[in-house]
Amino acid sequence: MTSLVAIDWGSSNRRASLLRDGVVVDRHHDAEGVLTCGGDFAASLDALLARWPELPADAPVLMSGMIGSRSGWVEAPYVPCPARLDALGTQLIEVPRDDRFASLSSRRICIVPGVCQYDEPDVMRGEEIQILGSMLLGGGDGIYVLPGTHSKWVIVENGCVTRFRSFMTGELFALLGKHSSLASLLGADNASEDMAAFRAGAAAAAGGGLSHRLFGLRASVLLGAQGAASSQSWLSGLLIGAEWHDPHVRAWIRSAATAATDGEVRIVGEAHLAHLYAHVAESIGASVRGFAPEASFLAAIQHLWSSGS
Amino acid sequence: MTSLVAIDWGSSNRRASLLRDGVVVDRHHDAEGVLTCGGDFAASLDALLARWPELPADAPVLMSGMIGSRSGWVEAPYVPCPARLDALGTQLIEVPRDDRFASLSSRRICIVPGVCQYDEPDVMRGEEIQILGSMLLGGGDGIYVLPGTHSKWVIVENGCVTRFRSFMTGELFALLGKHSSLASLLGADNASEDMAAFRAGAAAAAGGGLSHRLFGLRASVLLGAQGAASSQSWLSGLLIGAEWHDPHVRAWIRSAATAATDGEVRIVGEAHLAHLYAHVAESIGASVRGFAPEASFLAAIQHLWSSGS
Repeated sequence: MTSLVAIDWGSSNRRASLLRDGVVVDRHHDAEGVLTCGGDFAASLDALLARWPELPADAPVLMSGMIGSRSGWVEAPYVPCPARLDALGTQLIEVPRDDRFASLSSRRICIVPGVCQYDEPDVMRGEEIQILGSMLLGGGDGIYVLPGTHSKWVIVENGCVTRFRSFMTGELFALLGKHSSLASLLGADNASEDMAAFRAGAAAAAGGGLSHRLFGLRASVLLGAQGAASSQSWLSGLLIGAEWHDPHVRAWIRSAATAATDGEVRIVGEAHLAHLYAHVAESIGASVRGFAPEASFLAAIQHLWSSGS
Repeated sequence: MTSLVAIDWGSSNRRASLLRDGVVVDRHHDAEGVLTCGGDFAASLDALLARWPELPADAPVLMSGMIGSRSGWVEAPYVPCPARLDALGTQLIEVPRDDRFASLSSRRICIVPGVCQYDEPDVMRGEEIQILGSMLLGGGDGIYVLPGTHSKWVIVENGCVTRFRSFMTGELFALLGKHSSLASLLGADNASEDMAAFRAGAAAAAGGGLSHRLFGLRASVLLGAQGAASSQSWLSGLLIGAEWHDPHVRAWIRSAATAATDGEVRIVGEAHLAHLYAHVAESIGASVRGFAPEASFLAAIQHLWSSGS
């Protein structure tokens, strides 16, 4: 039996899976993120592994995400575009030995590198794994979008990430809801999305001008043109719409639709966000396919481990 | 002798001037803003007036800004576009009597209303006074820009505000510098503006895509394409550039330049910001004229009082 621990270790969260012969036998999700776990990553991993006393002493640990950033355990240098994703397994970075913890001493503990783009500066860490997994699960070459704090739009050609483009979508949404002059409008957690407001926000994004539109939301509520309760959905539509209406993204979708590869946008995101993205796609006549982030992550980790070790 | 107290009472600050026969004889600036003074506006004004024991008991107080908003002393309903600015003096709103304070009992205490636009929802409070003052100081009809937390671009035709457009420029700059993932890059207060970085940021705004550009700033620093120290100037350029490159603003400047009125952009802002705005203007071939906010404010307040009382 072969055991493997796979960890998606982000800035503020960590998702770990214990696999045995390719099957997930346990999962653990906690808030021990790179910026929140206190900085002693070895101690934090040791505590995590203590959940699984039956884990063989030589079972490897494979990690992706911000754990490989400058503020993480050890910096895993970015692989520049064009980046062949199924070769990332040969570029794993091992963390330095730490003899304080017996649980870490006889196993390989590796970090998957992120991907960077120099000509128009951009970076990703963690998304590369999700994309590889979705490719393996049938996505192949094409356009991918990964909704999130820093959403990514990605072109995969011949198995390589050739271009990508990030958006601060999730971060701006949280920032405006918590700290801006719109916070009192956006404060209430919506029980359900107001899809008409979401559509209106996405349509408003077509004209660009985010900084203007944000103030406009406030003015619309003040003047009674928009209900305060649906402001959150409208803002969500505006920020997600800004991705779909970005001139580069539009050009990618158009040219893909006429090229050898299909024009489908592969959405790698949780159900609620994937649904919202699909909604904007429909409004501009684009077709989509969905991939589950966790299944993609696990498919990629296993592929990398078997090809790289 | 005629005395008058003029107060520009904003959300987080208050600027008061004591005028005697049209001449400023004293100024006071404090942090007793609408949202920061504790909510007892009468008590706050009473304490302010105590600075000037020689003030005649019947000298009026004229106020503009957020003090007339829903969260202010008394709501001064917006005057809708097209709004004749030199007639605002006939639409002053008096605050309710408050017998707790002898200093307030025998004088008129009035608030200047703001201006709103219904077809594309937008609002201003406080800027209308600055524009009127600049008009009186020789600006006349034309395009005005008022840099700030919520920058305003305004068209004045035949003495009326006919259209305007707000941008969250200053608020986004502060928000990103304090609370975002860019905060550590932007944290250091720049001793001086890096004009090359400012220009690069303004040029980047030409392509739109603010949400993408913000993440790109982070990536540029991570990849060594941009120095961290100049990030603040670059961001300032991006946000201010987004105003000048806004399609509507560009169209206004173009059409004004060919119409009866001149195409000059009248900048009503403090020296440092006015300088930055003028810099972007130059890069796109627009000409500008500057107006000092305080002089404009005082000119308008006196005009409104003499015409409205």
